Amino acid sequence: MRILVLNPNTTAAVTDKLMLAAQAVARPGTELVAMTATRGVPYISSRADAAIGGAIALEMLVEAHTEVDAAIIAAFGDPGLGGARELFDIPVVGMAEAAMLSACMLGRSFAIVTFAGGLVPWYNECLDWNGLRGRCAGIFALQGAFNSLADVQHEKEAALITLANRVVEEHGADVVILAGAPLSGLAATIRERVCVPLVDGIQAAVTQAEGLVALNPRKASAGTFARPPAKPSIGVAAALASRLARED
Amino acid sequence: MRILVLNPNTTAAVTDKLMLAAQAVARPGTELVAMTATRGVPYISSRADAAIGGAIALEMLVEAHTEVDAAIIAAFGDPGLGGARELFDIPVVGMAEAAMLSACMLGRSFAIVTFAGGLVPWYNECLDWNGLRGRCAGIFALQGAFNSLADVQHEKEAALITLANRVVEEHGADVVILAGAPLSGLAATIRERVCVPLVDGIQAAVTQAEGLVALNPRKASAGTFARPPAKPSIGVAAALASRLARED
Amino acid sequence: MRILVLNPNTTAAVTDKLMLAAQAVARPGTELVAMTATRGVPYISSRADAAIGGAIALEMLVEAHTEVDAAIIAAFGDPGLGGARELFDIPVVGMAEAAMLSACMLGRSFAIVTFAGGLVPWYNECLDWNGLRGRCAGIFALQGAFNSLADVQHEKEAALITLANRVVEEHGADVVILAGAPLSGLAATIRERVCVPLVDGIQAAVTQAEGLVALNPRKASAGTFARPPAKPSIGVAAALASRLARED
Amino acid sequence: MRILVLNPNTTAAVTDKLMLAAQAVARPGTELVAMTATRGVPYISSRADAAIGGAIALEMLVEAHTEVDAAIIAAFGDPGLGGARELFDIPVVGMAEAAMLSACMLGRSFAIVTFAGGLVPWYNECLDWNGLRGRCAGIFALQGAFNSLADVQHEKEAALITLANRVVEEHGADVVILAGAPLSGLAATIRERVCVPLVDGIQAAVTQAEGLVALNPRKASAGTFARPPAKPSIGVAAALASRLARED
Amino acid sequence: MRILVLNPNTTAAVTDKLMLAAQAVARPGTELVAMTATRGVPYISSRADAAIGGAIALEMLVEAHTEVDAAIIAAFGDPGLGGARELFDIPVVGMAEAAMLSACMLGRSFAIVTFAGGLVPWYNECLDWNGLRGRCAGIFALQGAFNSLADVQHEKEAALITLANRVVEEHGADVVILAGAPLSGLAATIRERVCVPLVDGIQAAVTQAEGLVALNPRKASAGTFARPPAKPSIGVAAALASRLARED
Amino acid sequence: MRILVLNPNTTAAVTDKLMLAAQAVARPGTELVAMTATRGVPYISSRADAAIGGAIALEMLVEAHTEVDAAIIAAFGDPGLGGARELFDIPVVGMAEAAMLSACMLGRSFAIVTFAGGLVPWYNECLDWNGLRGRCAGIFALQGAFNSLADVQHEKEAALITLANRVVEEHGADVVILAGAPLSGLAATIRERVCVPLVDGIQAAVTQAEGLVALNPRKASAGTFARPPAKPSIGVAAALASRLARED
Repeated sequence: MRILVLNPNTTAAVTDKLMLAAQAVARPGTELVAMTATRGVPYISSRADAAIGGAIALEMLVEAHTEVDAAIIAAFGDPGLGGARELFDIPVVGMAEAAMLSACMLGRSFAIVTFAGGLVPWYNECLDWNGLRGRCAGIFALQGAFNSLADVQHEKEAALITLANRVVEEHGADVVILAGAPLSGLAATIRERVCVPLVDGIQAAVTQAEGLVALNPRKASAGTFARPPAKPSIGVAAALASRLARED
Repeated sequence: MRILVLNPNTTAAVTDKLMLAAQAVARPGTELVAMTATRGVPYISSRADAAIGGAIALEMLVEAHTEVDAAIIAAFGDPGLGGARELFDIPVVGMAEAAMLSACMLGRSFAIVTFAGGLVPWYNECLDWNGLRGRCAGIFALQGAFNSLADVQHEKEAALITLANRVVEEHGADVVILAGAPLSGLAATIRERVCVPLVDGIQAAVTQAEGLVALNPRKASAGTFARPPAKPSIGVAAALASRLARED
Repeated sequence: MRILVLNPNTTAAVTDKLMLAAQAVARPGTELVAMTATRGVPYISSRADAAIGGAIALEMLVEAHTEVDAAIIAAFGDPGLGGARELFDIPVVGMAEAAMLSACMLGRSFAIVTFAGGLVPWYNECLDWNGLRGRCAGIFALQGAFNSLADVQHEKEAALITLANRVVEEHGADVVILAGAPLSGLAATIRERVCVPLVDGIQAAVTQAEGLVALNPRKASAGTFARPPAKPSIGVAAALASRLARED
Repeated sequence: MRILVLNPNTTAAVTDKLMLAAQAVARPGTELVAMTATRGVPYISSRADAAIGGAIALEMLVEAHTEVDAAIIAAFGDPGLGGARELFDIPVVGMAEAAMLSACMLGRSFAIVTFAGGLVPWYNECLDWNGLRGRCAGIFALQGAFNSLADVQHEKEAALITLANRVVEEHGADVVILAGAPLSGLAATIRERVCVPLVDGIQAAVTQAEGLVALNPRKASAGTFARPPAKPSIGVAAALASRLARED
Repeated sequence: MRILVLNPNTTAAVTDKLMLAAQAVARPGTELVAMTATRGVPYISSRADAAIGGAIALEMLVEAHTEVDAAIIAAFGDPGLGGARELFDIPVVGMAEAAMLSACMLGRSFAIVTFAGGLVPWYNECLDWNGLRGRCAGIFALQGAFNSLADVQHEKEAALITLANRVVEEHGADVVILAGAPLSGLAATIRERVCVPLVDGIQAAVTQAEGLVALNPRKASAGTFARPPAKPSIGVAAALASRLARED
Repeated sequence: MRILVLNPNTTAAVTDKLMLAAQAVARPGTELVAMTATRGVPYISSRADAAIGGAIALEMLVEAHTEVDAAIIAAFGDPGLGGARELFDIPVVGMAEAAMLSACMLGRSFAIVTFAGGLVPWYNECLDWNGLRGRCAGIFALQGAFNSLADVQHEKEAALITLANRVVEEHGADVVILAGAPLSGLAATIRERVCVPLVDGIQAAVTQAEGLVALNPRKASAGTFARPPAKPSIGVAAALASRLARED
C-alpha cells in the first residue's frame, strides 16, 4: 500500500525527519510518499498558522489523493483534517490524533510533551477537538528558545527526558507523547531513559494509517463525512476548486 | 466607533442582508463597514469550506484591521476566529460565538435552528470549540433543498417558525438562535410567532462588538492570544505574510 | 434606554463604585438607575448570604422593573437571577454571568480574581450554574484581611496585580475577571499593569444589558423562563406577592 | 435521635404526607419533628419560589437547629441547602439530594418522575448542583393539571405508574425517583407495579439523615462549609440576623 | 436486620478492623455478619487484584445472600459490585461508593486520602465508575512503605492527619474520606485533629446498607440490574455456577 | 510477529469466527494464535459474567504472554484489560477499545450496534471506562431472541443492516461499530449495504495490536501500569499466583 506523508509546512528538513521515523515502523509492503508544502510557513505553531495550513493541506491532498491508499497530515495539531475527511475517499489520519489514540492503549492518562511553549494553545484545541481531555494528564513544553528546528530534538534531548519523567512523577501520566514533527524519531532514541512508554507521532500515524487501509472502510455516503455537494469557488487553487465543484 | 462586518463568503447579497440586520441594532455612534470575500466560496457549509474560509478571513482582516475598532467574522461557525485573535490588536467577534453567548443570558438552554442540514456538522464543531455543549438543546435543520441563499429566509419562513416552536416543545429550548448569515434579519420578522426569544447572529455580534469596544480591553502580551513571534512565509497573501513577519 | 443597577447589598458606597464604573462605559443614550438594598447584608460573601440576597433581589426588582428596559443584578454571584428571569418581562443580567460571557470573547480561558477567599465557594457555584467550568482557569483570591469594602481596591491594588499576572503565568489564563462589586472600576486603573485583558464585572454587565435591549428579545411564553402561573403567598413582601399572584 | 423535617412550604397537608412516609422508615430510636413554613408559598415550583424559599428555610432552621441532631429540607430541589450547611453545626440533608444519592446505589441511571411539568426546570438545576447529570436518565413530568396538591398522588397514580415504566423502557432508567413532597408515600403503594426500584424522597432523606448522625461528623472549621465570620444585617428575621452575627 | 460485611481479601485481621468500626455505628437492631475471603490476595491494591477479587466477591455473595438483608463489599474500590447487583435480590453496597455518596452530603468537594500510592489507580477508576469526578478534590496517598496492614492506621496516624489537613488547605476539600479497609475506625480516633468532617468507609457503608433495607426497594425486573437470563458455565465455583444457571 | 487472540469465553465456534475475520486483515508477517477459555461462560453478556471473565482472561494471559508479541482480549467489553496491562510486559489490546479508537479516525461520532439488548449495560460501562462518551452516538441493540451465537450474524444480517442505517439517519453516527465477537467478519459482508464505514472489532484489534508492536513501546516502570510489587495469594490459578508473586 502507498501512504502519503503530507507535511503542511515548507521545511523539507522536517519532512526528512518525518520520513526517517516513519520508515522505521512501516511494514514491508508499505510505500511511504513524502510531500512538503510549497507554500505556507516553515513550522505551524499558532492558531493563525494552523488556519493558513488547513487550506494548504487540502490543496496538497487534492494533488495526491488518487495516488495513495491513505494520507497522514503530518503536523501535530492536524490542520485541515476534518475537511480532508469530507472531500476525499481515502482514509486520512492526523498525526496528533493518531498519537493520542495509540497512547490510549498504553495508559489511562497520556501527557503531551513538546519543545516550545508557543505550540501549547494549538495542541490544546486539537485535544478538545478529539474529545480526549479526560484521558490527558496535561500538555507540557520546554521553556526557552532553540537554535534550529532540524536539530531541536538533539539540542533539547536531555531537557525533554527530564520533562517527560517529571510529568510522570508529578502529573500521573502513564505514557508520554513526544509532540511536534521536529521530534520525529526521538522516542526510539530515548526509549530507555523515560520510565513510561513513549509515543512518536509520525510512527503512530503510520501504524494507524496502515491499520485503516487494512480495515478497508467504505467512504461514507451519509453522516457528516459524506462528500459535500458540488460548490463553485473563486480564487481557490485550481485542483481544489475542481474537487469542490465535483468535477472529478 | 467603526466595526467591520467581514463576510468570508463571496456572496454580496448575503453581505447586504447582514448589513441590513446589523444596522437595525447598531447604536447611533457606530459605523458599520462591510467587506465581502473576493475569493472563496459563495457560502461556507462544510468543514472543508471552513478550512478554506479561515485563511481567507485572515487575509481580509489584515487589510482592514487598522481602520476599525473591532471586527465581526460574519459566518456562523466563525472561520479563522482563533487565529484572528492572535494576529490582531482589535477585538474580533465570531457571529456564532456572539449568538451563543447572548443566548446564554436569555435561557438555560439554547437551540440552534438553521435552514440546511449540511451546516450542522460545522456548527457542532463550533459549539464544542466554545465549550457550550451543556447549554445547548440541540442543532436543528430543515430538511430539503432551497431555491436561493438570498431568499431562503422568506422561502422557508413558515418552516423555520414551525421548527423553532417544535424544538422548544420537544427539546426544552428556552431561546432559539437563527443560524446562518442568510437568515439575518429574520428574527425581528417572526418575533411574535415563536414562543421564546430569538437571537439573530449578526445582531448579537454587533452588540457584542460594541460592548467589547466599550470595555476597551488591552491586547494580550501574554497568554495564548498574545501576538505570535515574527515568522517568514511563502506563497501567502502579501499583507498577511507581512503581518506574520511582524513587519508592521 | 434605562438600565437598573441593582445592588442587592446594603452598602451604598459600593453602589457608588458600581455606578462610577458603569457610567464610564454606558453609551450616550443609556440612563443608569441605581438601587441599593434596604435590607440584607452589607456584602454577600457566602452561600447563606446569597440565599437571603436572592429573595431580596426579587423584592427590589418588583419595585423597579416597569421603569427600566433592563436590569443588572450587581453582585458577583448573581443572586436571584434565575427567578428574576421567570418573573419579569425585561432582560435581567447577572454581573458574574456578564463578566464571564464577555471574557469568553477575549480568551479561551478566563481566571476569576478576587480580594477575599470567603467569596470563592459562592463564585464556584455561580461558575457551574453558568456551565462555563471548561472555560475557567480557576478562581483565585488574595489571602488575608482588608480594612474596608469601599477602599479594598486601592488597599489591595498591588497584590491584585501580582495575583492577576501570576495566574496568567501559572494557570494559563488568557483574560482575568476582577470579581466582586468593590473592585468596580479597578480594571481601567490597572489596565497596563496586567499582561492580559481585564474584565470589570459591572462594565461587562452594562454592555451586555445594553446589547440585550438592542436585540429586543420577546418575553418567553414557553420554555423554562415563561412567567409562572399565579400563586398565592403568605408573608412575602407585598409587591412581590402581588407579582407572584399575577395581579399586575 | 431527633430529626427535623422542615417543609419550606406553607401547606400543612403536605407536611402531614411527609411525616407519614417518614415515620414508615424511621428507626425505633428516631424522633421526627415536623415544621411547616409560616410564610412563603403553598408549594415551591419555580426558580423564583425557590429563591424565596431558600431564605425561609434558613429562617426556620435557625429556630430549630439546636433542638435536633439533623435536619431535612423537605422540598424536592433543596432550597437553601448550601447556606444551611454553612450556618449550622448539625448535618442538613436535602430531599432531592438524598433521593439521588440513594438511587445511585440502586442503579447506574436514575430517572426523576414528577407530577407537574413546571417543576422540571428547578429540578434540573438541582441535579446539576449535585453534579449527578451523568447518572440521570432524565426528568419526566406528567402533562396536564391536577386538582389538589394533597390528593395528587392518588389522582395521578395510574399515570405516574405508566410514566415510570415508560422511562425504564425508553430511557434506560434502572431506578425511578418519585419527586415532589406531595408524592411522599406513593413509592410503597405502587412498589409492585413499577418494574424497577422506586425511591421516595422523604424516606431517602430520613435514612440519610439517620446515617449522618450515626457517622457523627464534626462541623468543618475550614473548607467551604466552615461557618462564615460574623456579619451584620438589616431587615433579616431576628434569629437569623443573630446567627449571621454569631451572637450565639 | 442482618447485614453482610464481605471482605474480599484474605486477611482476617482487616475483617476484624472492619467489624469493629462497623459495630460502632450500626443501629441496635442491626446484626452484622462478617465474611473473609478464603481465596484471593491479602489486600487488593491493583487493577489485577481487583479483577481477581471481583469474581471472588461474587463467589462469596452467592454463599451468603439468602441469609442477610443487605451486603457490603468491604474493599475500597468495590470489586464485583455491578455484577452483584445483577445476580442478587438484596441491596449490595460498595464501601467506596458509600463513602463517596455520604461525603457528598458533607461538602461540595471530597478528597480521598489513603496510606499507599499503589491504591490510587484503582480508586481513580472506581471514582469514574461512580460518575463523581466533578465532586472530587483529588485522591492522595502517603509516600513510602508501611510495616503491616493491621497496624498501618496507627503507624501512619500522624502522617495521615497532616495529609488530610493539607488537602483541605491546598485542594479545597470540604470533607475527607479515609480510604482503604485497614483505615477502618481511624476517622473517629482523629476526628478532632482534622479541620473538616471525615468519612470512614465501612461506617458509611453500614449506614447506607441500613438505609437501603429501610427503603425496601424491589428487585428490578427490568433495566440494567434485572437478573440476567440463565446461563451455563464451566469451571466456575459450584454455587456461583448454579446462580448463573438460575437453578435457585 | 505473533499476536494472541484470547477469547475469554468457552465457545470455540466464536473463536473460529474471530480468527477468520482476524486473518483477513493481518499483515503477511503476523502469526495469529488462538486461545479459547477452558472455564467460564459461553458468552459474556452481563457485568457478572464480565467480573468472572476478567479473572479468567488474566489466567489465560499468564499462560501465553511469553510466547507472543502482543495480545488481544477478544470479547467486546474488554474483561480484565486494566489488570492485564499491569501484569504483563507485552501490549494488550481490548477488542472494544480498539474498535472505538479506530472508529474515531473514521468519524466524529460512532455508534455501537449489537445483536442483543442484554449486552448494552456492559458496553456502556466499557465506553465510559475509555472516556469516549463524547464521541459516541449511542449503543443500539436488536430486540428479540436469536437461535445460536455461531449463526447470529447470518440470522440477523438484515436487521443489523437496517438498524445500522437507522442510527446514521436518526442519531447522526458517522461510523458504526458492529459489536460482539459473534459478529466478527460481518462488516466485510455488509460493507456496501450500510451508508457509513463499519468497524469490525477483532479486525480493528488486530491492526491496533500490530501497530503497537511496530511502535515497540517499553513496559512502564512507573505510572499506573508499572508491574505491581510481589504479592502472595491463596486459591488463585497457579501460574497467575506465580505472576502476582513475581516468581518469574
